[in-house]
Amino acid sequence: MTLSRRDLLALAVAMPGFSWLARAPLPTRSEAPMPSAPGPEDEPAWERIANEFVIDGIHLNTGTVGASPLAVLQATIQHMRAFERMIGQEAVDVPALKKELESFLGAWPGSIAILRNTTEAMNVAANGIALEPGDEILSTTHEHIGGRCCWELLAKRRGVVYRTFAPPLDPRNDDDVIQAWQANVTPRTKVLSISHVLFSTGLLQPVQALVRWARGRGIISVIDGAHPPGMLVNDLASVDADFYATSTHKWLLGPKGTGLLVVRPDRMATTWPLIGSGDWAAEDIRRFEHVGTSNDSLLAGLRAAVAFQQGIGREAIERRARSLATGLDSALRGIPRVKVFSPSRVSHRTAMVAFQLDGVSAEKLQGILGQARIRTRRIAESGLEYLRLSTHLYTLPRDLDRTLEILRTTARG
Amino acid sequence: MTLSRRDLLALAVAMPGFSWLARAPLPTRSEAPMPSAPGPEDEPAWERIANEFVIDGIHLNTGTVGASPLAVLQATIQHMRAFERMIGQEAVDVPALKKELESFLGAWPGSIAILRNTTEAMNVAANGIALEPGDEILSTTHEHIGGRCCWELLAKRRGVVYRTFAPPLDPRNDDDVIQAWQANVTPRTKVLSISHVLFSTGLLQPVQALVRWARGRGIISVIDGAHPPGMLVNDLASVDADFYATSTHKWLLGPKGTGLLVVRPDRMATTWPLIGSGDWAAEDIRRFEHVGTSNDSLLAGLRAAVAFQQGIGREAIERRARSLATGLDSALRGIPRVKVFSPSRVSHRTAMVAFQLDGVSAEKLQGILGQARIRTRRIAESGLEYLRLSTHLYTLPRDLDRTLEILRTTARG
Repeated sequence: MTLSRRDLLALAVAMPGFSWLARAPLPTRSEAPMPSAPGPEDEPAWERIANEFVIDGIHLNTGTVGASPLAVLQATIQHMRAFERMIGQEAVDVPALKKELESFLGAWPGSIAILRNTTEAMNVAANGIALEPGDEILSTTHEHIGGRCCWELLAKRRGVVYRTFAPPLDPRNDDDVIQAWQANVTPRTKVLSISHVLFSTGLLQPVQALVRWARGRGIISVIDGAHPPGMLVNDLASVDADFYATSTHKWLLGPKGTGLLVVRPDRMATTWPLIGSGDWAAEDIRRFEHVGTSNDSLLAGLRAAVAFQQGIGREAIERRARSLATGLDSALRGIPRVKVFSPSRVSHRTAMVAFQLDGVSAEKLQGILGQARIRTRRIAESGLEYLRLSTHLYTLPRDLDRTLEILRTTARG
Repeated sequence: MTLSRRDLLALAVAMPGFSWLARAPLPTRSEAPMPSAPGPEDEPAWERIANEFVIDGIHLNTGTVGASPLAVLQATIQHMRAFERMIGQEAVDVPALKKELESFLGAWPGSIAILRNTTEAMNVAANGIALEPGDEILSTTHEHIGGRCCWELLAKRRGVVYRTFAPPLDPRNDDDVIQAWQANVTPRTKVLSISHVLFSTGLLQPVQALVRWARGRGIISVIDGAHPPGMLVNDLASVDADFYATSTHKWLLGPKGTGLLVVRPDRMATTWPLIGSGDWAAEDIRRFEHVGTSNDSLLAGLRAAVAFQQGIGREAIERRARSLATGLDSALRGIPRVKVFSPSRVSHRTAMVAFQLDGVSAEKLQGILGQARIRTRRIAESGLEYLRLSTHLYTLPRDLDRTLEILRTTARG
């Protein structure tokens, strides 16, 4: 009998007094090497990749928080142990991590502040811009609280105005989206706060064109980029936003409680830091990220997360995740009484699919799937009521088959 | 040959592919139970306690960051593993943790926001108070950057005035300290920003009396309490400050990147949150601590840290740590050319001792001790130049003997 790595881990995890198994001595013997750049339908390769995770059940909620591969857990824990021996002298090579992140994201050198999550990064940007009472921030009615509350707080405290419009959910092309934004800009608009991918439906917005158009009118762009890094191939320097906020614990599969703010170089010196610590007066990225003692072990894990995805290949991951979502989207549309809210065009669809099943609330549906250990996200914000499914590099076709089977049974009543 | 737990761990740590040993199956056989309320000179008990740590060398820098006992590492790592299996569904019992922290600190029910560190907590307080341009904040010239920069940032951005005075470093009594504060208050003073214990010398300030006096004049008190929790027995409700900021990764020995802000109940609704997330408009403690996805595993470790110290006993820990510092202080004063800057009176001395050796810079001294794997803190802020030594529950007399031996040799040579 040959046990897979997943089997061995499940076994080890179940043992009382389980000692965390480091990678090298795992008795998996003929374990195949990790695949590089597998095609979107190379199932043995994706099975091998999924084997690097210890997920119990089916995780279709990467949009909230991703699973971490063993390599990330291992790097985090190894650093924790080493830190306890050396107490404060076990350093993570942060300059190397920064370079790796810059390469992964296509970000400018020296532009990345490592923070806790997208919410914090959005708050750093929102609080940092010098705004006057009456200045307007434009956004949509489909923003996540992490990208919305920073502006609501500023509106209440500083008298800025937070305006939202209903975005086109099924645009024919980028122009449909761009025109919706343009139609809602006023002479007082100082900031566009744009979700690169809508958390609610997965709609991919044409951020590059929106940023360029805004800059031409002297409008600052702040991107809630919680989802793209690790899901899509990014080139943030081309997006060219003034501020790009993300979480590296979602699609990038890093340790929980890690996120980034990417700041356009010309914005550094004129943006106020949110938290004043030793480097608050430095006129570079340090002013945003020196926030007192944090947990360096999470940074060690983040390096491993970047290496994990670089090893597989970013294009391969995007193709796989989006291809699975497209298959899921089609299958959902074939179920009676299902209404899909994600874009019908592949060009605007990402790796999240949101839908309703007429007659069964999203809450109830989530409960039914949850009983089968299938984890999903109910979108109940801003009066919406969707169930959202995320597909990622550890999602296997059989996971989606099982999910669809339950949904079909539920739809039949 | 019987190996101690520390020996076994050193061995295991040195092995390639070392697997983290959980507590139960450690082959230490006749390991004595953990002591409860040991006396300050009960060396076998403190040896047993020190055995719960994996420190390589001698750690005399708890004032910067504490070592965590095995139980804390274990709880953190176990939660990490469980979280990866259940992805987002492995909850820490935060209400229980809050109750445990309230009990440990003597804090009001519902008054504790769990954050990242003292720096963040100080910034939440500083940014949260509604201040007008010209309003003054009074503090000392001996503040840590984590308690100072929040005010400097506000001064630059919002036009408040940050005033400092040189505190009495060797007061005869509390009145000496209180009068120094009173003498520097002006009619524009709106906030006293007080270090409960000076990071530079360990001086214990009479915060309770200062807070009471300030409140009588309508002055808000913000306490930088980075050091007392886990070092001294605290009763924060008696201190009665408007805001009390601390780090739980120093003397409380919790996971790195954990800290607290304790908010006086009547301050909740009128204090602005620093980070706007889902609960920013709630009029209770949630508005300060809902900051997006953080790392819950650190909270699991924090619960273990509180339990660890409660098991030993807070009074016992304070007595031991202060008694060691008193012995160290006396011994240092006996070395030629050493000048001690910590208070000469036991009543105002805590578990940190700061000194200079005439003719040898603190930087050089730190290097000499570092070569013997003795970790210390050089205080070079605000024109000071001290070497600071911290004593805690894992410090053994032989650690101090070794340190003093090197200092004596250096003083001679």
